[in-house]
Amino acid sequence: MKCLHADIIAVGSELLLGGRLDSNSVFVAHHLAECGIEVRKKTSVGDQKGDIQEALRDALKHAHVIVLTGGLGSTLDDCTREAVAETLQCALIKRKKAFDNLKACYRRLGRSVTPLLARQAFLPSGARMLTNSVGTAPGFLMRCGQSVIIALPGVPREAKVMMVSQVQPLLRKFFKSNRHYWHHSFQTFGLPETDIQKQLNHFLKDNRGIQFGILASPRGVTVTVSCWVFDGRPSSVKKISPGFLERAYMIHQIRDCLSPWLFAEGDRTMEEIVGEVLRARSWTIAVAESCTGGLVAHRLTGVPGSSLYMNRGVVSYSNEAKRELVGVPASTLRRYGAVSSQVAMAMASGIRMRSRVDVGVGVTGIAGPGGGTPNKPVGLVYGAIDGPQGPQSQCWKFHGDRAEITLKTSQAVLDLIRRYA
Amino acid sequence: MKCLHADIIAVGSELLLGGRLDSNSVFVAHHLAECGIEVRKKTSVGDQKGDIQEALRDALKHAHVIVLTGGLGSTLDDCTREAVAETLQCALIKRKKAFDNLKACYRRLGRSVTPLLARQAFLPSGARMLTNSVGTAPGFLMRCGQSVIIALPGVPREAKVMMVSQVQPLLRKFFKSNRHYWHHSFQTFGLPETDIQKQLNHFLKDNRGIQFGILASPRGVTVTVSCWVFDGRPSSVKKISPGFLERAYMIHQIRDCLSPWLFAEGDRTMEEIVGEVLRARSWTIAVAESCTGGLVAHRLTGVPGSSLYMNRGVVSYSNEAKRELVGVPASTLRRYGAVSSQVAMAMASGIRMRSRVDVGVGVTGIAGPGGGTPNKPVGLVYGAIDGPQGPQSQCWKFHGDRAEITLKTSQAVLDLIRRYA
Repeated sequence: MKCLHADIIAVGSELLLGGRLDSNSVFVAHHLAECGIEVRKKTSVGDQKGDIQEALRDALKHAHVIVLTGGLGSTLDDCTREAVAETLQCALIKRKKAFDNLKACYRRLGRSVTPLLARQAFLPSGARMLTNSVGTAPGFLMRCGQSVIIALPGVPREAKVMMVSQVQPLLRKFFKSNRHYWHHSFQTFGLPETDIQKQLNHFLKDNRGIQFGILASPRGVTVTVSCWVFDGRPSSVKKISPGFLERAYMIHQIRDCLSPWLFAEGDRTMEEIVGEVLRARSWTIAVAESCTGGLVAHRLTGVPGSSLYMNRGVVSYSNEAKRELVGVPASTLRRYGAVSSQVAMAMASGIRMRSRVDVGVGVTGIAGPGGGTPNKPVGLVYGAIDGPQGPQSQCWKFHGDRAEITLKTSQAVLDLIRRYA
Repeated sequence: MKCLHADIIAVGSELLLGGRLDSNSVFVAHHLAECGIEVRKKTSVGDQKGDIQEALRDALKHAHVIVLTGGLGSTLDDCTREAVAETLQCALIKRKKAFDNLKACYRRLGRSVTPLLARQAFLPSGARMLTNSVGTAPGFLMRCGQSVIIALPGVPREAKVMMVSQVQPLLRKFFKSNRHYWHHSFQTFGLPETDIQKQLNHFLKDNRGIQFGILASPRGVTVTVSCWVFDGRPSSVKKISPGFLERAYMIHQIRDCLSPWLFAEGDRTMEEIVGEVLRARSWTIAVAESCTGGLVAHRLTGVPGSSLYMNRGVVSYSNEAKRELVGVPASTLRRYGAVSSQVAMAMASGIRMRSRVDVGVGVTGIAGPGGGTPNKPVGLVYGAIDGPQGPQSQCWKFHGDRAEITLKTSQAVLDLIRRYA
């Protein structure tokens, strides 16, 4: 039961001061885990050869697998190839197959392979080439003592394809790991992070080697449950990690305990779930938005196939638009103000009637930063729904900046639809 | 002219396999640069004390400044304090001031300070406490030989406040760096990354020590220009980096060369620029969307103060909605199909007339993945605008998945408004 560790080294000066983050490491870590390999460290360095070499030397001290991403292109600041070759003290050799691929690739683009572009065809001697089926620069894989070094292009699409089609099979063959990563996630909305933690205290205390993650975002709180499990050794499994039945029972218990706030499991989104419940009921929907400015409609229509249930949306930003587009009576606006449960309800009923759909939704609130008053502060939001089960409305008070408040509001409104259906 | 280097170490197991990225390092790197300190390496490690210690030891070998983020909370897996203390071989000592702050903080939340929570009040001996004015766990700063170690909470809001109000003044005092980071960025839309690069080839070849970054996203291509400059040494400046006038002249030249596609400089967004041009013209606007499903309206209303120009939006997803909400003639829909320049134009003119605004906008297209035909493939989009300068329309063909196509479409439509005004 060998525990295999990996380091990921992302190369690119834009990762240090350019405001870019090494997003490749997310899927690289995930794909390594599928091969039983656990990432212990992620590093980002600039395009300086010395910095890449230092990171590589640090990684070689303890990692079984080292994945470098980026720095394989044709411009002069791309020097991952050189850094690896010099660290391992081997030569860079022009590969015929790599060069032929480059020629074919650039021919399709109507260009010839200049000496600068040809740099991509040079790989450390002894390295196995990883073909790039969706771009120009090939990657490579080579062994160094007990470690395996893998270099992938920085372009996510290219690295992903290479990882799945070539790297994973090789790693499985090399290491034959009998360990795999098991994980499950719960998506909740409506209960703060600290209260979710309280709900789970019982599990957190006696976690039996299972890792819990509780991560809050404007979309709600995600609870992840994960552990490394070993295959084919039933007798020893129980000691180090819970077996299949135990894990299934735990998932069942957590589901029970989170159920009042649980809207999805895995990485499905609220809008996908809402789409599903609407389709299950064969209901059509229309949305009238004020403070969210179209975000609820945009999220609903972001789901492929949503034209089956989504009929229309209106962004009735001005009072005039609220009267004209969804028929909110001028007297209701005058009496209760645009941000009120009465106006949200009138918007929901108005759009439902005018578009002849099953479910009408209305939302109005103050997204800030301006526009708040002591009685109606920034973050105050009213949502309403009208449909076959009669009218329902809800009031929320959200914190954050304008973008956060609108995102939380859209999530709350979608959750209102989900619970209604 | 000392060059100061920093390492950033982000602590948290969720950064390795939880799908989370260390976003704190973006502003930490930026704030360090403002103090003349250049980040050379970013590392993410899990909550294991040994891994934090190893990363810290690696960093101590070469970095003048080491910033750790995360792992300062009260749960048992938070062990950044212990890792630093053990690496530097000093004790963790309970700080009265930190403990008093904790007590006051939890009292406001109606809780008392349990022994677990009290862990946050223990800091390495000799460390200077960094007060947390927006959360519970204090940070700390301590010297170790030639290096300065800074530990900040993982919560971005807390780390940001601490960085600006306490860390930056201390770093400026300690290092008195005469170097600073100069950068400028250009936001373009409408020209592919490779063509932008061609436009800039002249500058890239003779870059005079200036770093260029060319980064593509669905919102367009961002060109960044940056370098480290030294203050107060006018005679030596020219040799190592271009002086103020040279930089200003270069910016001027690049602006000229990118101008047909340039929509903003700095980190301003397209919707902010559109808001500005509408306000400058005192124009009001209304938007009729099909494939973008409300994203254009959402982005327009995402700008504080947008109620001054944004009157309304409609998401006329179904043909029925196109007829009813914006009066697209049934014959136009029949004759040209919902995805056509005629329908986009009818949507623009229709919403303009019905809402009595200065500018009406219409957009219709095929976001995919389904719904494409050989004549009208996925990614085909028509946008139209009607206003004081008469009608205009445009056709685009975008690549990518549903989310990318709608984001690119929204950017193209906003750009159409910007160019119109």
